Amino acid sequence: MRLMVQKYGGTSVANLECMQKVREKVLHVLDRGFKVVVVLSAMSGETNRLIEMAGKWSKRPDPCEMDVLLATGEQVSVSLFTILLKELGIKARSVLGFQIPIQTDKSFGKARILDIDAEKIKATLNRHDVLVVAGFQGCDCEQRITTLGRGGSDTSAVALAAALDAELCEIYTDVEGVYTTDPNICPQARKLKRIAYEEMLEMASMGAKVLQIRSVEFAKKYNVPVHVRSTFCDQPGTLVVQEDKSMESAMVSGVAYDKDQARITLVDVYDEPGVAAMIFEPIARANIVVDMIVQNPSRGGKTDMTFTVPRGNLEETLNILKKIKEQIGASALLYDADVAKVSVIGVGMRNHSGVAAIAFSALKNENINIMIISTSEIKISCLIEEKYTELAVRTLHEAFGLDQESSAKKC
Amino acid sequence: MRLMVQKYGGTSVANLECMQKVREKVLHVLDRGFKVVVVLSAMSGETNRLIEMAGKWSKRPDPCEMDVLLATGEQVSVSLFTILLKELGIKARSVLGFQIPIQTDKSFGKARILDIDAEKIKATLNRHDVLVVAGFQGCDCEQRITTLGRGGSDTSAVALAAALDAELCEIYTDVEGVYTTDPNICPQARKLKRIAYEEMLEMASMGAKVLQIRSVEFAKKYNVPVHVRSTFCDQPGTLVVQEDKSMESAMVSGVAYDKDQARITLVDVYDEPGVAAMIFEPIARANIVVDMIVQNPSRGGKTDMTFTVPRGNLEETLNILKKIKEQIGASALLYDADVAKVSVIGVGMRNHSGVAAIAFSALKNENINIMIISTSEIKISCLIEEKYTELAVRTLHEAFGLDQESSAKKC
Repeated sequence: MRLMVQKYGGTSVANLECMQKVREKVLHVLDRGFKVVVVLSAMSGETNRLIEMAGKWSKRPDPCEMDVLLATGEQVSVSLFTILLKELGIKARSVLGFQIPIQTDKSFGKARILDIDAEKIKATLNRHDVLVVAGFQGCDCEQRITTLGRGGSDTSAVALAAALDAELCEIYTDVEGVYTTDPNICPQARKLKRIAYEEMLEMASMGAKVLQIRSVEFAKKYNVPVHVRSTFCDQPGTLVVQEDKSMESAMVSGVAYDKDQARITLVDVYDEPGVAAMIFEPIARANIVVDMIVQNPSRGGKTDMTFTVPRGNLEETLNILKKIKEQIGASALLYDADVAKVSVIGVGMRNHSGVAAIAFSALKNENINIMIISTSEIKISCLIEEKYTELAVRTLHEAFGLDQESSAKKC
Repeated sequence: MRLMVQKYGGTSVANLECMQKVREKVLHVLDRGFKVVVVLSAMSGETNRLIEMAGKWSKRPDPCEMDVLLATGEQVSVSLFTILLKELGIKARSVLGFQIPIQTDKSFGKARILDIDAEKIKATLNRHDVLVVAGFQGCDCEQRITTLGRGGSDTSAVALAAALDAELCEIYTDVEGVYTTDPNICPQARKLKRIAYEEMLEMASMGAKVLQIRSVEFAKKYNVPVHVRSTFCDQPGTLVVQEDKSMESAMVSGVAYDKDQARITLVDVYDEPGVAAMIFEPIARANIVVDMIVQNPSRGGKTDMTFTVPRGNLEETLNILKKIKEQIGASALLYDADVAKVSVIGVGMRNHSGVAAIAFSALKNENINIMIISTSEIKISCLIEEKYTELAVRTLHEAFGLDQESSAKKC
């Protein structure tokens, strides 16, 4: 039995006409000899409507009951879509999270999948050609309904593809695939044919709009090939797959940016063991994620400590630091909310030197000052003034020849 | 542990304000030391909205998927109402049909309850003060969602009260109780304080608007006291209970009517064994319910056979009969769609004679001709011309003194 998993987002099932288009796509795959597991989101707007409603009922609605409420969105779309399939006599049925079951932990509103009963769903597949599965939802060990968080249907689809060992997991959405960078700020951005799981994870800042980040982690862990493509055109999209040799020949696959950054500098803190912990422990306790960190070389037993936090956490972080400023000997607490992070990403970096040099000199040529640099095996990130973000993205995109498929490969 | 089951219909949970009123009622019962199982319907209009939607998707939507779709209505109301309870810190949780489980047969759209896991729900009650149960829904042995048909939440509530051995089952609705007859056509109609299960079943034609008939069968079988009352006033409603001695002192409890009747007469059929079967077997095979049947005394080996069917089945019934008319020797096939059935109902009839005489003479005094009479232990029904329905109801209501509580009892 050949098996394909297809996931359709809210805009793809927004109304009867959209669902009819989706049905055609499913029929096409059936014609090719596949059985299909179709994972659906709620019809677009429905989840927001329910959240708004609950907001009128309570300012802080019980998270556990919110999941019971929100799960109805997917329940409506799977039943309606199955009605449409059965109109044509297709052997189909809807399947809800608790029926599989997709077992999760008890983190209502952002539950993680623990287990999928593959044998049970395979038995159901023996008796049907199409299973229409409600995405986004699961149930805990007591059969209480849970949801996987925004974009959770992507994770449902990839997890099902992994559990059922499907040939392919297609994620249908309203964009045509993953681009070398954001086409809105760089018209030369090019749709990628393939991208490695790790690159996709690093592209999070842009990629999260295309694919829920946890679904990529899942795909990577179980090596599920994922095809991100558009419901509204027949062109192939982007394959998210394991890194292979052809990828390594490309030095850089994409340029990402993140404006949700604020920079903080503690001037003249004691350069002693334990000072870094004194700074970052209380920030972590407040659930604030510190991103880039640099420490200058010591001058006379003192050093400067610079790091970034999400912009929305700036004020809270400053309040925390004011309390310990004296203790750590800091002479000043500086901050800047008008900063952005631009990153070049590519698994090919592992085998290429000089990527950093190209990036730095490209930015220098545009007189863009780099405040902080951080690097990983497959990524170089630079913190710059926010106003230069778009220019920096275009500059780096051009510097690595990302607008030209061939040159990107040969670089 | 004192336990009460309360069921609130769609108009009682139509919006936030309504739900807040329901919450007050629940709080009141908690204050009296009860734990409460609250059974809710979908918010008013929601079930119709979903049915209409499915009707656009398919002219004959798959019944199994319809149940998946419709069950979301109750899921929304129980989650929202529980959110409202938890706002006040009440130990509450929502419970869906499959979570109890309320196990039913596989008759999607009109499923019958087979079993309720009382132990499991009692265990859940130990940890909560209020369980908010989705009415109308259950699941079959494969955990597929089923629904119990229109008004099914009444049956959910009574079945839960029976399974949990609750002290009382309160059915909150938008009418104040069960009346001696339809107040719309007889302003003297009086709200009954008590009514026996069997009387309530016979009152179906009016009573079905108040209480789903299957819920009454359930209540009778398990002897569950049911209190039918209004959400919108604090007056007590009507207790539906087992027949007791005080009831027997009233000869008649109510007058019902049914305009969904059509009369058919087969003239001059052979008065031989087997002829009745030849007439009624094909009608039954077509799933048409025959109500009243009379056969005139034989004249020269021939007789007339008169009976009633629901008005919507008249044409189909006539078509069936045309085919066998010759075979059974009938000289004519007559019919009349402008007929109605009026009934006087009361468990007291068992111990009183003369009820039929009072009814017939009351109708005669108004020159209302009786076409067919049929009787049961606790009911006398007369088929009359439809145009006299309202007059007949008012006449019978007065003849049995139903407008006066005391006289009704003493009659």
